[in-house]
Amino acid sequence: MSAGSAGKLIGVGVGPGDPELMTLKAIRALAEADVVAHFAKAGNLSHARAIAAPHLRPGITELPLLYPVTTELPKCSNSYRDALRDFYDQAAADIAAHLEAGRVVAVIAEGDPLFYGSYMHLHTRLAPRFPVEVVAGVTGMSGCWSAAATPIAQGDDIFTVLPATLPEDELARRLSEANAAVVMKVGRHLPKVRRALKESGRLPRAIYVERGTMADAKLIPLAAKPDDDAPYFAIVLVPGWEDRP
Amino acid sequence: MSAGSAGKLIGVGVGPGDPELMTLKAIRALAEADVVAHFAKAGNLSHARAIAAPHLRPGITELPLLYPVTTELPKCSNSYRDALRDFYDQAAADIAAHLEAGRVVAVIAEGDPLFYGSYMHLHTRLAPRFPVEVVAGVTGMSGCWSAAATPIAQGDDIFTVLPATLPEDELARRLSEANAAVVMKVGRHLPKVRRALKESGRLPRAIYVERGTMADAKLIPLAAKPDDDAPYFAIVLVPGWEDRP
Repeated sequence: MSAGSAGKLIGVGVGPGDPELMTLKAIRALAEADVVAHFAKAGNLSHARAIAAPHLRPGITELPLLYPVTTELPKCSNSYRDALRDFYDQAAADIAAHLEAGRVVAVIAEGDPLFYGSYMHLHTRLAPRFPVEVVAGVTGMSGCWSAAATPIAQGDDIFTVLPATLPEDELARRLSEANAAVVMKVGRHLPKVRRALKESGRLPRAIYVERGTMADAKLIPLAAKPDDDAPYFAIVLVPGWEDRP
Repeated sequence: MSAGSAGKLIGVGVGPGDPELMTLKAIRALAEADVVAHFAKAGNLSHARAIAAPHLRPGITELPLLYPVTTELPKCSNSYRDALRDFYDQAAADIAAHLEAGRVVAVIAEGDPLFYGSYMHLHTRLAPRFPVEVVAGVTGMSGCWSAAATPIAQGDDIFTVLPATLPEDELARRLSEANAAVVMKVGRHLPKVRRALKESGRLPRAIYVERGTMADAKLIPLAAKPDDDAPYFAIVLVPGWEDRP
């Protein structure tokens, strides 16, 4: 089949969770797609699919992409990396078959597809071979600070996104060097994140967020949140704009 | 007038420029608003208003908020700061009058209202006194890396937003310490930004972006962009995800 008759891959950001935070462009992409693909853990529903559900055409071909692992494994383990790589290779091959048949495949992604999204693993594999379009989405962190109605960064602020997996001293140093920050994937790292925030002087303004744009969102000062439990996707906001009026 | 009959302030993100990157929530907020306010430089049209124009109700009350200064003044100058503070005070007072009369006032903002947006100056002044809602939007930087179809950050990447106003050595150090970065407000700082990227080893992957989501967008490797001119709002993307497959 010639390249000219190839389909198109569209990475479609569906936003952070609130279905109303989908864009017109995402909705149009879904209306035009022949196939909708979505990632999910085996046994779980895809969050992205739940968000986009009202906009899927009846009878559209769905391609669920089910992660091979359901529990957190050490990311440094070779078997984990190999299993994921094989999974993404296979998912890309499945999508490529649709693209070669001239179909438009929309891969729906929570938040913004190219900002910490699984879609990127398909993008790097398929963009060299097929026409690709990316529909930007509202990020999860924007959803969180908007739900908290808390200005995050202004003017010449330096803003940083930090994974909670960093060592405590590095977290503390980077927090103290940024005006504003988001700490991601807090989960079991919460006690360490709290200590790093305290060391960096950022604890008093830190906000703990679970399920930021869901109806059951939890947004509280981190100082008021016990260390007992935090889900993997909980985040901490550290608002900047220190000289605000 | 009692607090109960007060109106509501809504900060409405309208996204990075492409009108299709508006969210359903932003469109609904505009449909419900009695008054729509927008910032612009005197003599210029509001970008946010141009984006939102198709969704403004005929006959809606508009409240243009015109910056008192049209040229860049040193931000450290007291007269600049005072003029801006007075301007935001007056803008907040004008909006407060509508809110006290029970009206819903939507302040439209390019990108995301709480991420480097002028809306924040109104928010901090009015949120203590009136009901406030914020509608998250797609950020300008998301629009840019999506237009470039370039994955920006993945996994445990550290992502940083840096103003081009930083001194060269600090820019270089922070660039080398981040996996992924966005340098904002490049303008006349382009030669310095280029040197800092070179020092930090990030120049080969840096992408220069003007008017990221506009029809006349310019997206080129920074290495291919001359130092001769760059608009104030040009940005540089430094994609991370160094171990991508």
